[in-house]
Amino acid sequence: MAETKTLASYIVNGRYDDIPADVRHEAARSLVNFLAVALGGSVDPAVDIAIRAMTPFAGKPAAAILGRVERLDPLHASLMNGISSHVDDFDDTTPQNYIHPTSPVASAMFAYASANRVTGRDFVNAFVLGFEAESRVGNAVYPSHYDIGWHITGTAGIFGAAAAIGRLRGLSEQQMVWALGLAGTQAAGLREMFGSMGKAFHPGRAAQNGYASAILAENGFTAGERGIEGPRGFAAVQSAKYDLSKVTVALGTDFNLRRNTYKPYPCGIVNHPTIEACIELHRAHKLQAADITAVRLRVAPLVLDLCNQQNITRGLQGKFSVYHGAAIGLVRGRAGLDEYTDAAVNDPAIKRVRECTTATGDVSLTEDQARVEVELSDGRRLTWSIEQSLGNVHRPLSDEQLSEKFRMCAARALPPDTANAVLDRCWRIAELDDISTLVNATVPVPQRA
Amino acid sequence: MAETKTLASYIVNGRYDDIPADVRHEAARSLVNFLAVALGGSVDPAVDIAIRAMTPFAGKPAAAILGRVERLDPLHASLMNGISSHVDDFDDTTPQNYIHPTSPVASAMFAYASANRVTGRDFVNAFVLGFEAESRVGNAVYPSHYDIGWHITGTAGIFGAAAAIGRLRGLSEQQMVWALGLAGTQAAGLREMFGSMGKAFHPGRAAQNGYASAILAENGFTAGERGIEGPRGFAAVQSAKYDLSKVTVALGTDFNLRRNTYKPYPCGIVNHPTIEACIELHRAHKLQAADITAVRLRVAPLVLDLCNQQNITRGLQGKFSVYHGAAIGLVRGRAGLDEYTDAAVNDPAIKRVRECTTATGDVSLTEDQARVEVELSDGRRLTWSIEQSLGNVHRPLSDEQLSEKFRMCAARALPPDTANAVLDRCWRIAELDDISTLVNATVPVPQRA
Repeated sequence: MAETKTLASYIVNGRYDDIPADVRHEAARSLVNFLAVALGGSVDPAVDIAIRAMTPFAGKPAAAILGRVERLDPLHASLMNGISSHVDDFDDTTPQNYIHPTSPVASAMFAYASANRVTGRDFVNAFVLGFEAESRVGNAVYPSHYDIGWHITGTAGIFGAAAAIGRLRGLSEQQMVWALGLAGTQAAGLREMFGSMGKAFHPGRAAQNGYASAILAENGFTAGERGIEGPRGFAAVQSAKYDLSKVTVALGTDFNLRRNTYKPYPCGIVNHPTIEACIELHRAHKLQAADITAVRLRVAPLVLDLCNQQNITRGLQGKFSVYHGAAIGLVRGRAGLDEYTDAAVNDPAIKRVRECTTATGDVSLTEDQARVEVELSDGRRLTWSIEQSLGNVHRPLSDEQLSEKFRMCAARALPPDTANAVLDRCWRIAELDDISTLVNATVPVPQRA
Repeated sequence: MAETKTLASYIVNGRYDDIPADVRHEAARSLVNFLAVALGGSVDPAVDIAIRAMTPFAGKPAAAILGRVERLDPLHASLMNGISSHVDDFDDTTPQNYIHPTSPVASAMFAYASANRVTGRDFVNAFVLGFEAESRVGNAVYPSHYDIGWHITGTAGIFGAAAAIGRLRGLSEQQMVWALGLAGTQAAGLREMFGSMGKAFHPGRAAQNGYASAILAENGFTAGERGIEGPRGFAAVQSAKYDLSKVTVALGTDFNLRRNTYKPYPCGIVNHPTIEACIELHRAHKLQAADITAVRLRVAPLVLDLCNQQNITRGLQGKFSVYHGAAIGLVRGRAGLDEYTDAAVNDPAIKRVRECTTATGDVSLTEDQARVEVELSDGRRLTWSIEQSLGNVHRPLSDEQLSEKFRMCAARALPPDTANAVLDRCWRIAELDDISTLVNATVPVPQRA
């Protein structure tokens, strides 16, 4: 009945000491994964363009952008961090609501902590609280909200960013109610943008606008008091069905962060079981691209709702093509960042296999499962089934696998020694005296001429 | 089938010479009304707070804010203009879609034209095109979109701002498609914010984010190609029912601007017939507040959906209280800016009459009609009916009434001579060589000590 107020009270009162050890560790894992993908994405043209476009409007360059030499005001730095950390579709996922949760929250927080002194304990505490706010608002409206076409990472994400920045700013409960209201009234992001730079723009804007919501509320800018649960509030307006009890159930004991997952492949998560099956087939049979004459996929119906693009020319589109996922797995036996470039999408061997791939939705399969059948020119038919795809909550990436992913992604922006220093600090994030030392370590040193 | 592209093509190709004379004149009327309400609202605490909160993040102060001495970057100036021009709920309305159309478009345009040289002809042309884009997108989704709880001034408004700024920047058709897509994916604003500063925030953010959409698209930031009509685009996601043909029907011949209306009273437009009836009763019977014992209203059902707040303490709430509207009309015989202050809402005589007022929804009444019955302590019952409220499309404010409204509002920010100079320039806006001279004329000269 008063979900906004209850959630606000939780956020303003939550303490680091009340966070269980396993949740603190999952926070570090989430942040290692986040910094990995933000550094990997920091060299993407979407970030170059956004920086070029927005710099003439940006304020005092008080904040570093992760992985970049440019500095902007903290709001614009939040936007850039959000774009870079989502542009490769390699960030984390909470499968119960399909949010990519860390990007909107941490993008704003690292920008804030670059410009303001924040201790590691305060940072982790605010991150956990922001994550909870975001994920719980998402739980309340999922799946109806997502199914109609909202990119829930943008819409729920802004609540998380507002909550986390509001907590760092020490907002009162009333101010936090307004911050959540201002977040709700800016919640946006359409799935129609998938396959364009607009998709990564969503967590960026969620970070930037959530941050601004907290600042406005702190200064006394008022909002409706029932932004989440009111009759014209976020849930009622943006979701045909919703369950508001999910916002507040077991607050402070049930941490959504425990159910976070990390991707082994930089693309839409529903493609992962197909990719893994194809990599396994490649390895098991030492497949040669030229021998493949047909590929038949059976996948959960949602896969075809999200990732049914076959005739593609850009790397970004490949992330939402289960056909491309199958092709790179079969042809190259891997699915790293290099398999989602424009060049990879236009590689003739990959293109040919992609075009001889068909997919069928099968309601008996979950989104962690896939069935792949490959037909070869010698007439053989090879099959592989995945029951639980790598990286899902039952087969999580280990800490060491996350570190490996970090090194692979960070190599795009930083030399190995620097990357390892960032990684080491991030695993120890709660112990840091000042998060800005971590942020600054991600900034590349320009090469001397 | 390709509404985004068709609309984009219209916007990038539309020329001033193709705009009929009556539409050009209506553009001037809309802009006079806009500057009136922006100047009137420029002294509101919501604007003070927003400037105080955002200035630490603002960029080079290249743009004036209408009616203010502070300068900000053009994006933040757009936000402030949007807040000031809507905060009094005194701006214009297109009744077919309930959009307050000029605020999102002109707020961005005056900020742009403050920082960049724009001729009057180019300004009016871009304004007409932006207005069409906004209103047509709104037509396509109204009323379903509005009824569920979207503040359509925010959601449709961002398309108008993106279109107008994109036109001024000379975007290509492809860039305009992306600008409209980026606008759609940021379209936001919940009616739950009504009665708080969050309501005026909506056209402000629409102006700011629409402007940014155009700049990002100009720089090559891509979006989905079918932001309006795609299966996960604006219309499908944000409206249960919609008619996309309304986006493109009679483009270039049917101008929505012809159906714009201007408010005589600074509050929710559906209260207007009630207020007018009460003012007429006050005048006809020289009513004394102390003699009023009961007031009975019969109004269109939407009035009670929007304006059913009776127990109120703040001026902003009064704007969404048909009871307050009745009380000020009966007690004071007028409904100007001074009747919507916190002081007026707490005036004991007004409060008492407000509290003895009841309202009934009547499906036989349109939103331009009202029936008022007043019971006096001597037993008399007085009645008044309004069939077409003042300011609606059939009883429009005259040019002179708009000038009077301008002078009343502008007096809050500017001395009379300055206000008249601004007014004169605005009526001649299409003839101006450089719109920045008009913007600069709205900036108050600080008083010498």
